[in-house]
Amino acid sequence: MPHFVDTLLEHIRVKGSPVCVGVDPVYERLPAELREDGQAEPAARLEAIHRYVADLLTAVSPHVPAVKFQSACFERYGWEGVETYHSLIQEAKARSLLVIGDVKRGDIGVSAEHYAAGCLSDQPAIDDGDHAAPDAVTIASYFGVDGIGPFLDAAASQGKGVFALVRTSNPGGDAIQSLKLADGRSVAQAVAELVAGIGSDARWIGASGYSLLGAVVGATKPADAAELRRLMPRQLFLVPGFGAQGGGADDVRACFKPDGTGALITASRSVIFAYEQSPADDWMMRVERAAAELRSQIRAILGW
Amino acid sequence: MPHFVDTLLEHIRVKGSPVCVGVDPVYERLPAELREDGQAEPAARLEAIHRYVADLLTAVSPHVPAVKFQSACFERYGWEGVETYHSLIQEAKARSLLVIGDVKRGDIGVSAEHYAAGCLSDQPAIDDGDHAAPDAVTIASYFGVDGIGPFLDAAASQGKGVFALVRTSNPGGDAIQSLKLADGRSVAQAVAELVAGIGSDARWIGASGYSLLGAVVGATKPADAAELRRLMPRQLFLVPGFGAQGGGADDVRACFKPDGTGALITASRSVIFAYEQSPADDWMMRVERAAAELRSQIRAILGW
Repeated sequence: MPHFVDTLLEHIRVKGSPVCVGVDPVYERLPAELREDGQAEPAARLEAIHRYVADLLTAVSPHVPAVKFQSACFERYGWEGVETYHSLIQEAKARSLLVIGDVKRGDIGVSAEHYAAGCLSDQPAIDDGDHAAPDAVTIASYFGVDGIGPFLDAAASQGKGVFALVRTSNPGGDAIQSLKLADGRSVAQAVAELVAGIGSDARWIGASGYSLLGAVVGATKPADAAELRRLMPRQLFLVPGFGAQGGGADDVRACFKPDGTGALITASRSVIFAYEQSPADDWMMRVERAAAELRSQIRAILGW
Repeated sequence: MPHFVDTLLEHIRVKGSPVCVGVDPVYERLPAELREDGQAEPAARLEAIHRYVADLLTAVSPHVPAVKFQSACFERYGWEGVETYHSLIQEAKARSLLVIGDVKRGDIGVSAEHYAAGCLSDQPAIDDGDHAAPDAVTIASYFGVDGIGPFLDAAASQGKGVFALVRTSNPGGDAIQSLKLADGRSVAQAVAELVAGIGSDARWIGASGYSLLGAVVGATKPADAAELRRLMPRQLFLVPGFGAQGGGADDVRACFKPDGTGALITASRSVIFAYEQSPADDWMMRVERAAAELRSQIRAILGW
């Protein structure tokens, strides 16, 4: 069975790009030519989103090894949205993109097993040739090992991966994540050590030395990121929040190891809605250019 | 607009039952007469689950004001499972049961808005007469106010409710939730105070004095529960883990206020699979009896 992080690192190497585009489609922000005038029905909205995302994937695929699908943008359309999500994951795979399902699921015991089966498994109900499950998913950490373990089992048996939420990029997250513990750590650091511990079992470690249990680390505070990098040596970081959410060069650098591995930097709105700055241009060209620029920007930060 | 907790308290009063049945269907545990011999296709499994849950709802409806649907058990069947979930929520409403969707969703900002729309809203794609959205949902707390606020907005505008995860009933949850902060509180207590603060805004408070932001409080440690009850005077507690997960009488008592309001006690497997103890009996009768016993048990604990 291939190891997810080994596969991802190889894709990053081939494309020279430790970058991921976040696919967070919102009907109201689609290119004008894909939208109807007036109030569109949900089915028409979903159809427009399908066409948009399929072309978006084509536009970004030369520049990035992976895309991250924001499940919420599809779930808001009920089960038909969920079908579209799985259909578009298949479109991404057809373009040789790895897919991270940003589902942030979490529960305990047998419920976590059900979630893992639902969001990670290429089961008959989902994988029918036109629909697929993602290569990795994001999950909650608050439940501890009982919540994380079932996802690891499901991922390992299919060569897939998991990213546990450690630090979010929103200001409100500090209210819990920045609290100081009696032992001097922050809550986020304690979560990081928990994730590092759970992920360090030899079963989860690939040839690269990384664990199939990665970490979601919001890119907003360089000192925080450097400390989390130290606490989680075997975790690949999925770093949302570059660009639109305010992360910058120092934050990005702190997420990588000296050897240039260790993180996958994600930008969403700044790429997928890049055409909003110049609506007269071809929208796919604008998106492709934004993805290429994002790749160059991150390469420059890393001195590649 | 009616207030969710006011409505729930009235349903509890009418049925004399602060009790909720957790609907966590698992094909392998359905009554034998509903299962096929050998390996059933996913569609056949879902069809069996549909028949089972519809009859289950009929059986428990005389004894409980509300049911809690475990979304994971449906999501494991992909989008067809999600459709079944919404279809069965409509079946529950047709039996005058309030429905809590146990989805534990969480994200920040606009993604949280999308989740809120997807899991709470009676939107056209979902609410077509045969399908419905739940009256309340469970959500994550780790994101702070940015993650909780969008769900409150969506809930308030539709007379619905939200339960934020404060304390889970699994042993592994202690690894984070029981950590001691520098100020002497536990992480769970800090989360409780955050939830109490967010929920205390006058916009969210009903005629009963309760907030539409409730709390999920696992029933495993009476002293913990008593302290959380003190920290969250305006939160209705959704208490999973009674019965199968190990919660007992003292835990239950600690979740209520002296006036007998304040909690909705949930049991799942001990009720919905009650027929496993005596497979020769009519399974619906066994389930109905288990729901009635659960109600009596909780009433006895409360001295009703």
